[in-house]
Amino acid sequence: MELRATGDLGVVIEREAGSAQIVNTSKPAMLSRIEGLGDLSHASVVFSRDQRYAYVFGRDGGLTKIDLLRDEIVKRVVQAGNSIGGAISQDGKIIAVSNYTPGGVKLFDADTLEQLAEIPAVYGEDNQLSKVVGLVDAPGQRFVCSLFEGNEIWLIDAKNPRQPQVQKFQSIGKQPYDALLTPDGHYYLAGLFGEKGLALLDLWQPELGVKHILQDYGKDDEQTPVYKMPHLEGWTVAGDWLLVPAVGRHEVLVIDKRDWSLAKRIPVAGQPVFVMSRPDGRQVWVNFAFPDNQNVQVIDVKDFSVVKTLQPGKAVMHMEFTPRGEAVWLAVRDEDRVMLYDTETLSETARLPAQKPSGIFFSNRANQLGL
Amino acid sequence: MELRATGDLGVVIEREAGSAQIVNTSKPAMLSRIEGLGDLSHASVVFSRDQRYAYVFGRDGGLTKIDLLRDEIVKRVVQAGNSIGGAISQDGKIIAVSNYTPGGVKLFDADTLEQLAEIPAVYGEDNQLSKVVGLVDAPGQRFVCSLFEGNEIWLIDAKNPRQPQVQKFQSIGKQPYDALLTPDGHYYLAGLFGEKGLALLDLWQPELGVKHILQDYGKDDEQTPVYKMPHLEGWTVAGDWLLVPAVGRHEVLVIDKRDWSLAKRIPVAGQPVFVMSRPDGRQVWVNFAFPDNQNVQVIDVKDFSVVKTLQPGKAVMHMEFTPRGEAVWLAVRDEDRVMLYDTETLSETARLPAQKPSGIFFSNRANQLGL
Repeated sequence: MELRATGDLGVVIEREAGSAQIVNTSKPAMLSRIEGLGDLSHASVVFSRDQRYAYVFGRDGGLTKIDLLRDEIVKRVVQAGNSIGGAISQDGKIIAVSNYTPGGVKLFDADTLEQLAEIPAVYGEDNQLSKVVGLVDAPGQRFVCSLFEGNEIWLIDAKNPRQPQVQKFQSIGKQPYDALLTPDGHYYLAGLFGEKGLALLDLWQPELGVKHILQDYGKDDEQTPVYKMPHLEGWTVAGDWLLVPAVGRHEVLVIDKRDWSLAKRIPVAGQPVFVMSRPDGRQVWVNFAFPDNQNVQVIDVKDFSVVKTLQPGKAVMHMEFTPRGEAVWLAVRDEDRVMLYDTETLSETARLPAQKPSGIFFSNRANQLGL
Repeated sequence: MELRATGDLGVVIEREAGSAQIVNTSKPAMLSRIEGLGDLSHASVVFSRDQRYAYVFGRDGGLTKIDLLRDEIVKRVVQAGNSIGGAISQDGKIIAVSNYTPGGVKLFDADTLEQLAEIPAVYGEDNQLSKVVGLVDAPGQRFVCSLFEGNEIWLIDAKNPRQPQVQKFQSIGKQPYDALLTPDGHYYLAGLFGEKGLALLDLWQPELGVKHILQDYGKDDEQTPVYKMPHLEGWTVAGDWLLVPAVGRHEVLVIDKRDWSLAKRIPVAGQPVFVMSRPDGRQVWVNFAFPDNQNVQVIDVKDFSVVKTLQPGKAVMHMEFTPRGEAVWLAVRDEDRVMLYDTETLSETARLPAQKPSGIFFSNRANQLGL
């Protein structure tokens, strides 16, 4: 068996087939295909600390651990009825999954997938269960998540993963539908579905509680039908700026991170879905909801101008930059291919066959906070 | 042979023995020792894109490629008489080395270590050769370096590595002695030995030329003898702030990155050498020059207070954080050990034997710009 290092590996989700490709990004190629991963709608992936294993979270509650060196499934558990995403702890030892049904968070041993704790998302006087969204890892062996019906943000201390401690922030705004952590682990931002604005928690000063910001931004602004609710993991931080897809508008919003004010609106070619920063923060790439999802636009952060409109093919679903940003991979679902672009020349450099690819995840995510 | 992933590996330089340990950071341990690396004074290390190989730059001009999976030297070349450091290109295909004797930069194929180009550091009307310092990689397959005697900054485009193109910035200030690139690849800063202040090049707008900043800071401020000139790779960016060891003072300087003004001076326990940010930017750890090098101090970036003074042992030479910052490894030279601390509790968690350890480098550096 040829020795394989793990720094330049990735996983491409093939949603309809319930499979995933293991890929290499140095000499772009598929290394293998892993099948039997269940319902991969909205699938997301995190990586083990050593970058040997990928954990795939499926919509059907499936949690699958894939060995990137042996090209095989190590273990698969169906841990809930309806799952929405997951995260891995700072030390790499705990996998957390957020579930819609039954609503809550479960913690698993990253080695064995043994369940360590279950945290039902109870809220209100009747102890109802809420859907859980926006789950991310945070420094200090913590996780943060939001309760959609509960209107709460929870800060989960998992230092003792069999007895996690939960700090609850209540009445943070109506129906948080997704959230993100800034890449430095400093701020947690939840988007609100039931009212305008965002909920902001400063993890350096949680004692200050949750603030309401950007109260002019949000659902009531809608001018066109919302074909796809943008997920906040498609938001991006580029230097001093937070770039956000405007819900229901053909705009990317630029927010000044110093005071959380709206600095600029950038007109774009459709309703943005993912707004992703090149690792150095100089460029931001944007893809779009149907019927404009054949487009990808590139924004130069220097002056927030759109410098290029690409048409890679039908249904560009996701984008992932190589670790140091010299290339970007695009999942072009309806063309059954992944396309690679040089981010300096903005020209295509390769294309790889894939079955209805939806998500692309590279192993350097193992080193990043807040995913 | 047991399969080994490469995401949690590292190299510990054992300077006097001319050897290096390959270590694992998930289950802290030495995996192997590689000998025969020559003079490792001031040795530095970069990693291949796949994190399989470490390239060790020795003071004697030696460039050694180590296989972290097979625990062996793949190739070693002595490429100059006196070398000061190196870098790896954004795409991982080119190794650049900066040399004192003869002064210049050489480019090598990262696979084979074949020399691709030699760029003599000529300056002035007589085509004298300058020492080259402060060599870093930059986005766009570029390198940046400074000429100590030449008073120049060079921006090297290595897209065609056999015929690199050099853009020269002249009269940038007297005797640049070291430099850094901000982690986003945006700004290149060179410290000046021959005058006060720093030279600043905005790589997003190189046409603006090199600016002179912080003209009140620098060599003339010295109040105590300088035992060790801090190297700028010991500077750090934490959020909006640049933290800098004050030359010859018992202070860490805090510079506001928005306008490059001096925001604060933090009194510390000696002359700082390395000022290193935890990956999330919340903490900064500082070690010191002789005779205070038994101390390490931890600064909380929230309010720039010193929250802890540790005494790990005699001669703490270097510090390296694990990729997501839950732990830090300290090289304690005169105690012949590496010590590990939990960055949340600030308490020791492990110690590993090492022969006069000097530098520690983890494989996630493969993913970072500007090293």
